[in-house]
Amino acid sequence: MAVYTEVPDGDLEAFVARYAIGPVVSCKGIAEGVENSNFLLHTGSASYILTLYEKRVKREDLPFFLGLMEHLAARGIACPTPIRDREGNALGELCERPAAIVSFLDGMWPRRPTARHCQLLGTALAEMHLAGAGFPMQRPNDLAVAGWRRLFEACRARAHEVMPGLAEELAADLGELEARWPQGLPTGTIHADLFPDNVFFLGDRLSGIIDFYFACTDFYAYDLAVCINAWCFETDGSFNTTKARMMLAAYAKTRPVPPAEYAALPLLARGSALRFLLTRLYDRLNHPPGAFVKPKDPIEYVRKLRFHRAVKSAGAYGLDS
Amino acid sequence: MAVYTEVPDGDLEAFVARYAIGPVVSCKGIAEGVENSNFLLHTGSASYILTLYEKRVKREDLPFFLGLMEHLAARGIACPTPIRDREGNALGELCERPAAIVSFLDGMWPRRPTARHCQLLGTALAEMHLAGAGFPMQRPNDLAVAGWRRLFEACRARAHEVMPGLAEELAADLGELEARWPQGLPTGTIHADLFPDNVFFLGDRLSGIIDFYFACTDFYAYDLAVCINAWCFETDGSFNTTKARMMLAAYAKTRPVPPAEYAALPLLARGSALRFLLTRLYDRLNHPPGAFVKPKDPIEYVRKLRFHRAVKSAGAYGLDS
Repeated sequence: MAVYTEVPDGDLEAFVARYAIGPVVSCKGIAEGVENSNFLLHTGSASYILTLYEKRVKREDLPFFLGLMEHLAARGIACPTPIRDREGNALGELCERPAAIVSFLDGMWPRRPTARHCQLLGTALAEMHLAGAGFPMQRPNDLAVAGWRRLFEACRARAHEVMPGLAEELAADLGELEARWPQGLPTGTIHADLFPDNVFFLGDRLSGIIDFYFACTDFYAYDLAVCINAWCFETDGSFNTTKARMMLAAYAKTRPVPPAEYAALPLLARGSALRFLLTRLYDRLNHPPGAFVKPKDPIEYVRKLRFHRAVKSAGAYGLDS
Repeated sequence: MAVYTEVPDGDLEAFVARYAIGPVVSCKGIAEGVENSNFLLHTGSASYILTLYEKRVKREDLPFFLGLMEHLAARGIACPTPIRDREGNALGELCERPAAIVSFLDGMWPRRPTARHCQLLGTALAEMHLAGAGFPMQRPNDLAVAGWRRLFEACRARAHEVMPGLAEELAADLGELEARWPQGLPTGTIHADLFPDNVFFLGDRLSGIIDFYFACTDFYAYDLAVCINAWCFETDGSFNTTKARMMLAAYAKTRPVPPAEYAALPLLARGSALRFLLTRLYDRLNHPPGAFVKPKDPIEYVRKLRFHRAVKSAGAYGLDS
């Protein structure tokens, strides 16, 4: 939940006038996304999302993110299309921040994902991976295994405030993941943050994938691992094998999955759990009191980490093996 | 800035299906309004605002608020029109909260109000007062002079945390306002919270007045006093006489103002400043750390209170007298 920046009316009108989308008739800050300021913009002709990029997004990464959305949208993926201004720029500046206007996508993100949602997600994820294959830009995943050590060290001394013994537990996981992290798996452009609030559905159809601001070049199977964590656990912490099986099966029907990817899945899922645990832990420990954004619960990901630590093979995710 | 309640998709769809507005195609929590959860709802046919009333709004007051909006909208005032469901109800229930759908209004609220905005506001306020004259329901203003004592006593012991000597200063103002508060001024239905974020403009036109959840039966001139405080001070604390003069002149052109109302204006403006000061002070002192809503600055209203305390006649607001 965000909206950090107040945009003065005159500045907004001047900014939007640079685009061939008609004059603004309404602009409301929306309570979605925690990294940037997002506005739902109506012009006479259509609805758009206006995003002001706040400091957590690096300016030099924006051409990758916007370029990727444009690439995917042009290939039929239901993702926001950056709108170019009359001079052909997808990236502008508003209120001293980088800013972009993208197309608006209908649909709602599922507050209670079902197995059917997971199945539709599996297909869409595979289609996105295939469509992204020809995208020429690269961006290293700065929240991959190499980046976790730094986050861990920044939290280590105070991790016990969140849970006694947590630092010791994470140190062991991190050491093992660093030692055993897979090498040479099929790699391409991945979303890397495909949580339910980034996926819209409309009736029985997946209508949109949003928020590409963690997208990067990494193992395709790592995206699957993120989704297993984000979609297949119930709120009571139990793992729903049906959801995982339907997601993985739908994915594999569109993009055949090499055995090495399946074999790596337990470790990738454990790593992905550690990644979200570490960023949530960092945010919890460094959350200024009274700030707008309510930090997400790191404990949820301790439980997921422990689950994957005990997994022996991808069979635990409902795959026949 | 709000959105307190997450609405599960199934619940939302079932709720909207009770109305003849078509199926939901999008629903986004919006970062406006601090008392309730507000969503911008798109159906196939149009845009609406869905509001879930959180605990600060009393359920028994909702028929007054919704009835007033319906009354005003039917008389051409640019305010949200409550949409009735197929059974004729304007008020429903969603996620165990009272909930309503109202029409969406184009326009943006002015981050930097100009004298022209104030002039348009003056006309609209007078039109709203005239249109509300036939509204049959009554609601006492529970944040009028009689309600300030309770708020003050709840803040008294800790007011010095916000500003040394504040309790003593407010005690003197409150005593004087209680003793001298006007009697018998023309009374009707007023908005009572007409801040810039509750008024939308589109080009050179006032396109909407929203947020009737403090509306009540009180002196018309008290609404003017609220607007003087909310619209006519600059961010540096200085009073802009041009803005006040244009607002009051435009108002009087539509609804002639009896001399007794002008005579009472300095006291009403001082009272209105105290009212917003007290609620802001209360919220500041009782703001749970980490809550979503950033409390508004009470000090701004200390300065406004002091300004009006020194005013001898409505001439200070730019009126010829």
